[in-house]
Amino acid sequence: MKIALDAMGGDFAPQAAVAGALLAAEQLAGRATIVLIGQEDAVRPLLQAAGPAANVLEFVPASQVIDMGEHPAKAFQQKQDSSIAVGYKMLLAGEVDAFCSAGNTGAMLVGAMFTVKTVPGVMRPAIANFLPKLHNNVGILLDVGANAECKPEMLEQFGELGSLYAQHVLGIARPQVGLMNIGEEEGKGTPIIQEAHQRLKANPHIHFVGNIEGRDLFNDKADVIVCDGFTGNIILKMAESIYDAMDEKKIQDPFFDKFNYEAVGGSPILGINDNAIIGHGRSTPRAIGNMLMQGFNMADSGIVDQIKATFKS
Amino acid sequence: MKIALDAMGGDFAPQAAVAGALLAAEQLAGRATIVLIGQEDAVRPLLQAAGPAANVLEFVPASQVIDMGEHPAKAFQQKQDSSIAVGYKMLLAGEVDAFCSAGNTGAMLVGAMFTVKTVPGVMRPAIANFLPKLHNNVGILLDVGANAECKPEMLEQFGELGSLYAQHVLGIARPQVGLMNIGEEEGKGTPIIQEAHQRLKANPHIHFVGNIEGRDLFNDKADVIVCDGFTGNIILKMAESIYDAMDEKKIQDPFFDKFNYEAVGGSPILGINDNAIIGHGRSTPRAIGNMLMQGFNMADSGIVDQIKATFKS
Repeated sequence: MKIALDAMGGDFAPQAAVAGALLAAEQLAGRATIVLIGQEDAVRPLLQAAGPAANVLEFVPASQVIDMGEHPAKAFQQKQDSSIAVGYKMLLAGEVDAFCSAGNTGAMLVGAMFTVKTVPGVMRPAIANFLPKLHNNVGILLDVGANAECKPEMLEQFGELGSLYAQHVLGIARPQVGLMNIGEEEGKGTPIIQEAHQRLKANPHIHFVGNIEGRDLFNDKADVIVCDGFTGNIILKMAESIYDAMDEKKIQDPFFDKFNYEAVGGSPILGINDNAIIGHGRSTPRAIGNMLMQGFNMADSGIVDQIKATFKS
Repeated sequence: MKIALDAMGGDFAPQAAVAGALLAAEQLAGRATIVLIGQEDAVRPLLQAAGPAANVLEFVPASQVIDMGEHPAKAFQQKQDSSIAVGYKMLLAGEVDAFCSAGNTGAMLVGAMFTVKTVPGVMRPAIANFLPKLHNNVGILLDVGANAECKPEMLEQFGELGSLYAQHVLGIARPQVGLMNIGEEEGKGTPIIQEAHQRLKANPHIHFVGNIEGRDLFNDKADVIVCDGFTGNIILKMAESIYDAMDEKKIQDPFFDKFNYEAVGGSPILGINDNAIIGHGRSTPRAIGNMLMQGFNMADSGIVDQIKATFKS
């Protein structure tokens, strides 16, 4: 198996990317090879400096870089030899089994839609993020930013996508799916949320447990929490700021440490025909390494085939 | 000055209400009198048990109680001798200067709209909540639940209402107003949020600092954070769950201790013709006492007159 990494993506690239690739390569020895994609001048010297350990890494040159501030669609179309564009081309061609980048989030999303494309039957892909749980392992929240506005049908599909991911990648046998709302009762929330509730409730593919509230994010009421990308993005960034505050105050705790994006790695794009993961802009080597492990786990689980099979019917 | 308290509101009423009233009465001695409203049989024995300290409290009987689970509008209209209905009648008649309740939130909101009514020019009142700040005192977030869906004009008005509150009640000279969004750039978010951004930017009554993100809730970018009631309610409940998690883990910290609703007391309803505050259902005596102090501060500041004057023009 081959897991590709955008060596130019993230605030600390290419150094953090190369260091993260080395971390993952060690863990994946014998199971997968890491393929670094990036500018030769920037990456080669780092590989040389890493010595023999870097011999297990593959390198594919890409002459351009999409910067963090660039317009995603425009940059992706104009920079066809950027590390992100090259990564998606390799993914589409089946040369790699997953593609990970801590670069421009929008360009990663646009690249996914333009190359490997959305799974037939899926209205819009969603970006999922992990949620630490107080008395359990982990849950997932989606969408966290791909779709600021969502139709009820989209929210219903996010429930299915999240449930499949929880089942096949996280190994949760019968994931409980909850709808983020402002009250437990069915009639709560906006008309869109109310209709989404009815749709999720009627969906035979998932185990819907009803509305959950902001206070339920970290408890065991739901393994999969469905929301629009506006709400999910705010929750995600708020959780990060909680971790930053704890870090600033030197408070250490196993639960709150899980709020650290480094521990997770990245956010998978669900509902596309291949495995793509978006990392945090501030990704450190540890974060990159974990994102690559996650890419391996996704590819290894066959989650995309599961999604395709579910939405085919 | 007189500050009224619903003695029957909240999970621990009437005990917590009477105890909280005694706490506030001590602090407000010579400046304001606390008026307890509730069922005679339930409240009188508690006042007698409190001994001479309770002599400073006034008591007004109300034979009915609106329960937490009741339908707000129906209950408010049918139970005209409930503690919430009596409280609003006294507020409307000018017999008290503020009314506080930890009871049914919806009934408190309905009561406000039916009796003291919305300030002319204000589209919809908002519920505001305090936000602890990492390097500063406190900020406010609104709406946190009165309006799940908001028009851009409403969000603009929330910016004005919040700014007036921050200025006149919290004493922040030139409050910075931010719009909760999923990115800093103007074009981010839903069409409603984008239009709200333009309106807030063009509003001469406020100092708009642009979009802020989930990660900015606790930093100093904005004193007043504007959002719809869906988003605000989720943020508020998520913050509470963070406090509960810290409490469970026995982590103590002055910043995170401010996430405890007890330290704040309640959430003012802004945009109505009088001072009304909604407390947390789980309010303890400390929470009730702080809510009453907040009611006094609101009444003392003349915030309602400031709001009326602003929206008259």
